[in-house]
Amino acid sequence: MKVVFEFEVKQRDGRARTATFATPRGQVTTPMFMPVGTQGTVKGISPQELSDIGSQMVLANTYHLMLRPGEQLVEAHGGLPGFTAYPGPFLTDSGGFQVMSLGHLRKITEEGVVFKNHLDGSRVELTPERSIQVQEALGADVIMAFDECPPYPAERSYIQASLERTVRWLERCHTVKTREDQALFAIVQGGVHEDLRLQSLEATLPFATPGFAVGGLAVGESKEEMYPAVAFTASRLPENKPRYLMGVGHPEDLVAGIALGIDMFDCVYPTRTGRFGYALTDDGRLNLNSSAARTQLVPLDPECDCYACRHYTRAYLAHLLRAEEMLAPRMLSLHNLRYLHRLVERMRDAITQQHFQAWAAEWSQRYFRGNVPEWFRKALEQSARPETP
Amino acid sequence: MKVVFEFEVKQRDGRARTATFATPRGQVTTPMFMPVGTQGTVKGISPQELSDIGSQMVLANTYHLMLRPGEQLVEAHGGLPGFTAYPGPFLTDSGGFQVMSLGHLRKITEEGVVFKNHLDGSRVELTPERSIQVQEALGADVIMAFDECPPYPAERSYIQASLERTVRWLERCHTVKTREDQALFAIVQGGVHEDLRLQSLEATLPFATPGFAVGGLAVGESKEEMYPAVAFTASRLPENKPRYLMGVGHPEDLVAGIALGIDMFDCVYPTRTGRFGYALTDDGRLNLNSSAARTQLVPLDPECDCYACRHYTRAYLAHLLRAEEMLAPRMLSLHNLRYLHRLVERMRDAITQQHFQAWAAEWSQRYFRGNVPEWFRKALEQSARPETP
Repeated sequence: MKVVFEFEVKQRDGRARTATFATPRGQVTTPMFMPVGTQGTVKGISPQELSDIGSQMVLANTYHLMLRPGEQLVEAHGGLPGFTAYPGPFLTDSGGFQVMSLGHLRKITEEGVVFKNHLDGSRVELTPERSIQVQEALGADVIMAFDECPPYPAERSYIQASLERTVRWLERCHTVKTREDQALFAIVQGGVHEDLRLQSLEATLPFATPGFAVGGLAVGESKEEMYPAVAFTASRLPENKPRYLMGVGHPEDLVAGIALGIDMFDCVYPTRTGRFGYALTDDGRLNLNSSAARTQLVPLDPECDCYACRHYTRAYLAHLLRAEEMLAPRMLSLHNLRYLHRLVERMRDAITQQHFQAWAAEWSQRYFRGNVPEWFRKALEQSARPETP
Repeated sequence: MKVVFEFEVKQRDGRARTATFATPRGQVTTPMFMPVGTQGTVKGISPQELSDIGSQMVLANTYHLMLRPGEQLVEAHGGLPGFTAYPGPFLTDSGGFQVMSLGHLRKITEEGVVFKNHLDGSRVELTPERSIQVQEALGADVIMAFDECPPYPAERSYIQASLERTVRWLERCHTVKTREDQALFAIVQGGVHEDLRLQSLEATLPFATPGFAVGGLAVGESKEEMYPAVAFTASRLPENKPRYLMGVGHPEDLVAGIALGIDMFDCVYPTRTGRFGYALTDDGRLNLNSSAARTQLVPLDPECDCYACRHYTRAYLAHLLRAEEMLAPRMLSLHNLRYLHRLVERMRDAITQQHFQAWAAEWSQRYFRGNVPEWFRKALEQSARPETP
C-alpha cells in the first residue's frame, strides 16, 4: 500500500498557517501540539482523556521503548496503537536525542552511537539502520531520521562536522526504510549559525521527505539566539510540507513558533510541570504549591473546559498535591495538555479569521503581564512579513 | 429538614439479603462495597470513573481530613461532594480507628483520645463531641459514632472496659449531633467473644440508630475467629437496618460477609493491592510483577468490563508497572474496584434469583482453586440456615 502523506495548507496569515496532514491513522489539523508518551504512555493520562482534550498525534520515544519493553513486544501488539490503546496517529523520535544526552555514557562514530543502557548498564548500539528497524517495529505514522543534536554550546567546527554526518545518516535511513505507510521526516541541524543551517537545509531538501523537523534548538541557547534560527530555517523549508520544531512547548514558544510558520510541536513540559504542581494559564504559570492556593475556591483556570477546571477548586488540588495524592499530577497534567491544545486551537481560529498577529500581541500582553520580551515581539513582527528567503 | 434513612429489604436468600437505602444524596442498593477516599480522593481515581464503575457511596477519613486540609476548608466547599466533586453519598468514619492505630503516640481516657499529629507532631485531642463536629462539617450522609477498636490480641477485661466506654461515647455522640440530614451509625464491639458481643449489642440497640456497624474485626485475628463473630453479631442486629462490616474487603470476605447478612463494606485493599501490581480476578489474585505477565497479550481479566480490561494487555500493564508509570496503579486500582463492585452485583443478582449459596459455592471452588477453606464453607452453611439468635 502506497500512502501519500498529503499536507494541504488551508490558510495563511503572514508566516503563520493552518493545514491538514493525512496519515494512515487519520487526518490531523495543524498547527498542533503532540503530547509525549515517553515509555508508551503520556504520564498519568488515558487514551480516552487524550482524545477528549483534543490530542491528535502522540509522540513515543524509540530509545526508551527499544530498551524496555523492547520493540518486539510492541510489534506483537500490532504496534503502538495496539500496545498503548491510543487509536490515533503516532510519531516516534529516532532515539538519537536521548542517546546523545547520555553524555560520557555514549560514544559517537560514523557508524552510529554506542551507549550504556541506563537500565542495566549493558552495551547497546544505535545506528541509522537500527533506529529505522526499531521505528518500523513500533509502527508510528511519522518516524524521524537518526540525527545528532549537538549540545549547546558546541564548537562551530563540531556542529558542521556533525550536520554533515547527520546528512550521511539520513541517506542510510532512506536506504533501509521498508514501510511505505510511515512518513520519514528529515531533521535540519546547524545550531544557531545561519550559514550552517543553510548548509544543512541544502543537503537535506533533496531527499524530499514528507516533512522536515527543525532540530538542535531549545537545548540551552537563549530565546534571542533560538528564534532567529527558527525563522531562518522555517522560511526556507518547502511550503507544502509540515515543519516540526522538536522538543518545544512552553506556551510562549507555541505562539512564537506558529507565528514563524511552524506546524508541529512536542514537549514533556506540560506534564512535567504539572507533576511539580504548576498549572498553565493565559496569566502565566500558576503555582499550586503556594500557600495562597490552599484557600482559593476557584478553578485552576476559569476559562478552561478540562475535567479538572470543571470539577475542582485550586484549594482541593493544592490539598491533593500536599497530600501527595496521584490525582494531583494526573489532573494538573490533564489541564496543562488541554491548555496547550486549546491555545493552538485559538491560534488556528485566529489564522482562519486572518487576525493572528493581533491575537498573539494581545495574548502576549496578558501572559507576560505587560513585559513582552524583545525576542517575542520580533517573532511577531517577522510573522507579519512575507517569507522571503 | 427531617430525613428518613429508609432501609427496605427487597429480597432474602438465607441470611443474605438485598435492600435499598435512602440517603440525602441518593438511594443506594445493598449489598455494596464502598471505595475508600482517605484524604478526599480514592487514590488515582476520578469521580467520573467511580460513577462509571458502579461505586455508590464513598468513604472518607475524618482523622486525615481534620488534620489536612482541616474540616473548615471542606465545609467551605459545601462538604465532601463539593470538595471532591463526587456527587453521590459519602460515609465518614469517626477518626477513632486511625487514632487508635497510632500506638504509643496516643493516650485514651474517658474523655477521648489525645494524640500526636503525624504530620507536624502537634498535640491533638479527639473526643466524641469533636468527632461529630468534624463529621458535621465534612457533611457525609452517613457518619460513624466515635468508638474504640481494641487491638488484637487484647485482654478480655480490656475489651469489656473498652466496649462499655464506647457505649458511653455513643451516648455523647447522640447528644451533640445537630444535623438531621446525617445518619449516625453505632458500632458494635466485643472482639471475638460472643458474650462481650452480646453485651455490646444489648447496650447499643436501644439507641435505635439508623444503621449498625460490626467493628473490632479484621484487625489481626484469624478468619476462623472472625466469621463466627460476624455471624453472631449480624444475626442479632435489627432486620430493618443496614449492617456495615468495617474495614473489610477481600473478595472472599465480601462473599462470606454477604452470606452472613452484611450489607456494607469498605476497604483500602483493592486500591492498595492495585498500586503494588496485583489484580483481583475470579481465579484469585494476579501478580503483574511476575515475569510471566510481561508477555501475556490478554486482558487482566477477560470477564471484566472495566477500561483497563477493555483496552490493555497484561504485558502492557506489566510494562507500565516496571517503568513506574502512574497509569499502572491507576488502571489496576480501577480494575480492582470494578472487580469488587461487579462481584457484589453478581451476588445481588444471585440473591434476587434465590440461588446465592449455590452461586457462592461455585465461585469459591474456582477462586480457591478447589481448596475452599473451612471457615468459608461454614459461613455458607450458616447462610442457608435461618437467623435464629
